[in-house]
Amino acid sequence: MDLLAEKFRKLGTDNAPGQEVRQRLGQDTPALKGETLAGRPVDFSHGDVDAFVPIPGSFDVFSEGVARGGAQAYTEYRGSLEIREELAGRLAAFTGAPVAGDEDLIITSGTQGALFLAAASTITRGTKVAIVQPDYFANRKLVEFFEGELVPIPMDYLNARDGAGIDLDVLKAAFRQGAKVFLFSNPNNPAGVVYSQQEIGAVARLAAQYGVTVIVDQLYSRLLYDGESYTHLRALETGEGGLITIMGPSKTESMSGYRLGVAFGSPEIIGRMEKLQAIVALRAAGYNQAVLRCWFAEPEGWMAQRIREHQAIRDDLLAALRQVDGLQVRTPQAGSYVFPQLPALSLTGLAFVRALRVQANVIVTPGTEFSPHADASIRFNFSQDHAAAVQAVQRTVEMIARYRA
Amino acid sequence: MDLLAEKFRKLGTDNAPGQEVRQRLGQDTPALKGETLAGRPVDFSHGDVDAFVPIPGSFDVFSEGVARGGAQAYTEYRGSLEIREELAGRLAAFTGAPVAGDEDLIITSGTQGALFLAAASTITRGTKVAIVQPDYFANRKLVEFFEGELVPIPMDYLNARDGAGIDLDVLKAAFRQGAKVFLFSNPNNPAGVVYSQQEIGAVARLAAQYGVTVIVDQLYSRLLYDGESYTHLRALETGEGGLITIMGPSKTESMSGYRLGVAFGSPEIIGRMEKLQAIVALRAAGYNQAVLRCWFAEPEGWMAQRIREHQAIRDDLLAALRQVDGLQVRTPQAGSYVFPQLPALSLTGLAFVRALRVQANVIVTPGTEFSPHADASIRFNFSQDHAAAVQAVQRTVEMIARYRA
Repeated sequence: MDLLAEKFRKLGTDNAPGQEVRQRLGQDTPALKGETLAGRPVDFSHGDVDAFVPIPGSFDVFSEGVARGGAQAYTEYRGSLEIREELAGRLAAFTGAPVAGDEDLIITSGTQGALFLAAASTITRGTKVAIVQPDYFANRKLVEFFEGELVPIPMDYLNARDGAGIDLDVLKAAFRQGAKVFLFSNPNNPAGVVYSQQEIGAVARLAAQYGVTVIVDQLYSRLLYDGESYTHLRALETGEGGLITIMGPSKTESMSGYRLGVAFGSPEIIGRMEKLQAIVALRAAGYNQAVLRCWFAEPEGWMAQRIREHQAIRDDLLAALRQVDGLQVRTPQAGSYVFPQLPALSLTGLAFVRALRVQANVIVTPGTEFSPHADASIRFNFSQDHAAAVQAVQRTVEMIARYRA
Repeated sequence: MDLLAEKFRKLGTDNAPGQEVRQRLGQDTPALKGETLAGRPVDFSHGDVDAFVPIPGSFDVFSEGVARGGAQAYTEYRGSLEIREELAGRLAAFTGAPVAGDEDLIITSGTQGALFLAAASTITRGTKVAIVQPDYFANRKLVEFFEGELVPIPMDYLNARDGAGIDLDVLKAAFRQGAKVFLFSNPNNPAGVVYSQQEIGAVARLAAQYGVTVIVDQLYSRLLYDGESYTHLRALETGEGGLITIMGPSKTESMSGYRLGVAFGSPEIIGRMEKLQAIVALRAAGYNQAVLRCWFAEPEGWMAQRIREHQAIRDDLLAALRQVDGLQVRTPQAGSYVFPQLPALSLTGLAFVRALRVQANVIVTPGTEFSPHADASIRFNFSQDHAAAVQAVQRTVEMIARYRA
């Protein structure tokens, strides 16, 4: 069991978003300074679906699914063909490249499910996998779970003038030295930056040149702020290695409680993902699949308003954070994450996160979940009640002052 | 990618229940004899949730979950604590041994999700895993996916006078020769037989003696027919290796469309399962978890009636099948599977299954999904409309006559 013990040791979730409830106060708890700060608790580890509610009509569509009975409960492992066909057209229009509903698309248990299946279908022991730092914490864990070899790709998002700031020279060197898979999120989670057309073009060319399989998590690509533009990798030529794009309605559309995602792209990889899904969970919950009917079919103006509201929160949070001397933060171009780098503190980033929770009723995700080099950063998911979010960030600012080195 | 290609080659799902729609008619299609048999199509590959509907009130409980919003959408990865605590008491009462809701139980994406997580937490490359033949098809696939070594344990269910007919001498030899995990279903899927008290007692003693981890899938343990008795392994002492029991409301309770299951037992294994679930799917869909509130809390008499109705179908199907000369079938003691061994035919079992689908509108699952030695057997899930099921089995009887060797 040693191999397994080691594998599961690496799979720690103690500091993962939403798992704070399992933390025991103990030796990791920092020596606290000062009094508790009063205010409405805000859990920035995930979006608040009570503040931003699911797509109008989604529950009705679910109810219709239940009423359909067996036909909706039991679908192919890759999901209902009828729904896949509907989605394929919409996703093709959104991403600018064709999607065949029958062969190119699978419905999964959330985008996490899609990431797991895509990783399992392309990574085995010894597979070199290029992973951006920082990036979504599960990417690293997936590589470790499948015993791949992680090849870190730095992203200087704080100083990049244009785009995400990925180091394309390091990416090229990684591919040349045998990386077979490149797994990344765009917009980047946690930094909220969007890869430029030039960066995505370079990723496509390098993937084609070296036959690399690319898995791109585009979960937040619809929540794009004023003046920003987005380049879909799948609209470019990426070569023989194959490309899987992952999206889902859990974030911008607030449907996380239904656990739905999709992966689309190279049919060989999608085929593997289906075979695996059969033993992982059989299928995404049949009734829930029905809810995808209202995705990319939202009422006129609904998405525009959602973007506007998030942009307003973003701007207020940035204004508050930028008053902190020595704090660095990049303006998120898309999505609902902001990832400031704090000034030097008298305690570790992890300890500060715990103090923040205990003393200020503010839950954030520590930067080390996203990169070993991000101990000084914390991630906020600002898809929250606007006023509560602003007040919670003000408390955070006060806590930074309190624990400044 | 060769290691991966080999892994996914073994993960074939072409003949898995519910995947018939993906089969292309081609060289595997047998030369058909005779005309098409008219009659209402019946898909015996899974239960018909239109004939046997979900627990009354389950949709209302789901709706309440959606109305609760974020608190229901985002739970710990192992599921809502409140719901786990509720279930723990009921499952302890049902199985006759304590369950701690906080540490001993995880809510999963169906029992398939529980099986996957339990297997991943205990099997790695080279782990010897004892698997009964025949048994649920995914058990074998899980061992292969995690590169364990399968140690087959014969079960002579057709000739056993009492119990399931597992060969306890072979099981003991397997444990002595280093099998670390024993994974089996009770009642057995596909044969519908229940392990006797003596058999389960022997499994417990052997597991304790050799420190084997046992994973027991008790999905159908509530649907127990007149005069039968059931022994819960977890009520016995099974030693240091650990024991995980898996159940869920997808079958007897017809809640498959919600994809819910639970695993309970050794907290160390449950802890690993949670860590893994975090990267597999985050959690069982939050809203769906609410539905578990009505599980083991069904209206008075509801389960008794459900058992009565299934027993009536079982008896009619057995009567029809036993008219076939040379067909052998054991009376299912629990669950809704019947697994006859057909007389010698002029085509393979797999080809007969395809002919049955094409010519008689009857879908069954080929025996080879459950054991390499079961080519002569087919599995019916008889949780169907009673009259339609009887007629479909009559057509099957006619097809057997048509293709008899």
